[in-house]
Amino acid sequence: MMRGKFIAFEGGEGTGKSTQARLLSDHIEKNGKQCVLTREPGGTVGAEAIRALLLDPPGSGWGARAEALLFAAARSDHVEKLINPALTEGKWVICDRYLDSSRAYQGGAGSVGDEAVLTLHEIGSKGLRPDLTLLVTVPADLINQRLTARDAGQSDAIGGRNAAYHQAVADTFIKLAKREPENFVLIDGVGSVDQVSMRILQAVTDRFGAEL
Amino acid sequence: MMRGKFIAFEGGEGTGKSTQARLLSDHIEKNGKQCVLTREPGGTVGAEAIRALLLDPPGSGWGARAEALLFAAARSDHVEKLINPALTEGKWVICDRYLDSSRAYQGGAGSVGDEAVLTLHEIGSKGLRPDLTLLVTVPADLINQRLTARDAGQSDAIGGRNAAYHQAVADTFIKLAKREPENFVLIDGVGSVDQVSMRILQAVTDRFGAEL
Repeated sequence: MMRGKFIAFEGGEGTGKSTQARLLSDHIEKNGKQCVLTREPGGTVGAEAIRALLLDPPGSGWGARAEALLFAAARSDHVEKLINPALTEGKWVICDRYLDSSRAYQGGAGSVGDEAVLTLHEIGSKGLRPDLTLLVTVPADLINQRLTARDAGQSDAIGGRNAAYHQAVADTFIKLAKREPENFVLIDGVGSVDQVSMRILQAVTDRFGAEL
Repeated sequence: MMRGKFIAFEGGEGTGKSTQARLLSDHIEKNGKQCVLTREPGGTVGAEAIRALLLDPPGSGWGARAEALLFAAARSDHVEKLINPALTEGKWVICDRYLDSSRAYQGGAGSVGDEAVLTLHEIGSKGLRPDLTLLVTVPADLINQRLTARDAGQSDAIGGRNAAYHQAVADTFIKLAKREPENFVLIDGVGSVDQVSMRILQAVTDRFGAEL
């Protein structure tokens, strides 16, 4: 059985990642491949329980180091119980956020550092990387308009951090994508859902044409 | 303000650690020192929430790697919010289980390895070590009698693992203590509560006499 392909969507809040992840999954299934659509933090019963602790922390909230460890723990469960078994069965896996979110949020914006986040991933998940990471980018002012319309002030413990934090997240994503062009494809997230979806299909076809 | 002393109790289930930790804490307070008695996993609101996930896991239970990451996350919160602030204020801290339990359970018995557990501790808690670790040892057959009397079969997800696992825990504790005699003092846990307590007070006085 040929191992399936693993595609991660990355980007800040309000970039349209989740909608696009679903559309890509639908497209892959229409093309006759089995596809698992999942998300982080979460995706398994255990990882969803950790997600609840991360987004609505008990007590006074997590320090950056504890937060990075919790993300790595959730990812370890997700990789062991869902992602790796699906890939081994030949299924494609589309994940809404993965390792590079930890690198951008806890590693860059949260100042835990990239090396520590990668070390946690090595210990927790044997360093499993996606075959392709789609980084969806949208300018900050447009993001703010979208989030204001969507949330009406109801953001979680991470989404609700200040603008400087979210700018540091966006800057780190771009820095990682430039440093690792073999892993990342940048997707312009400005425009209609269909326009962005077309750009994503093009990127996926460019990478996996013969297999898709 | 002189930094307080940090003493950890270690050992398998049923060695009498928790009782002895409480007695030592009482003794230190009677000697006029402020002393914080705490435990792992747990000790803070956040870490106690992680404890609940560890001892009564959602879903099918944690893999060894996810479990090691969760312990390190709980410890990070505990060190940042309780242990380090107390030590800085000059208080003594007595902790029922700490890093060496992760080394024995997840590192040794759970096969994550000692190096990975130490790396997680470095990232999560900047490698904070106790000033003294008291390893309470009791022969396996006596432990089994005590646990049968105590639990009546009601053990948690970790305590309930098989005899080979608990033997590997005990073996790893002894190996660590032999390898790091500057950190560990072995305490013979056989005998009455008072007898064991006297041995512990002797060990603590030997180490910290002038300060205690």
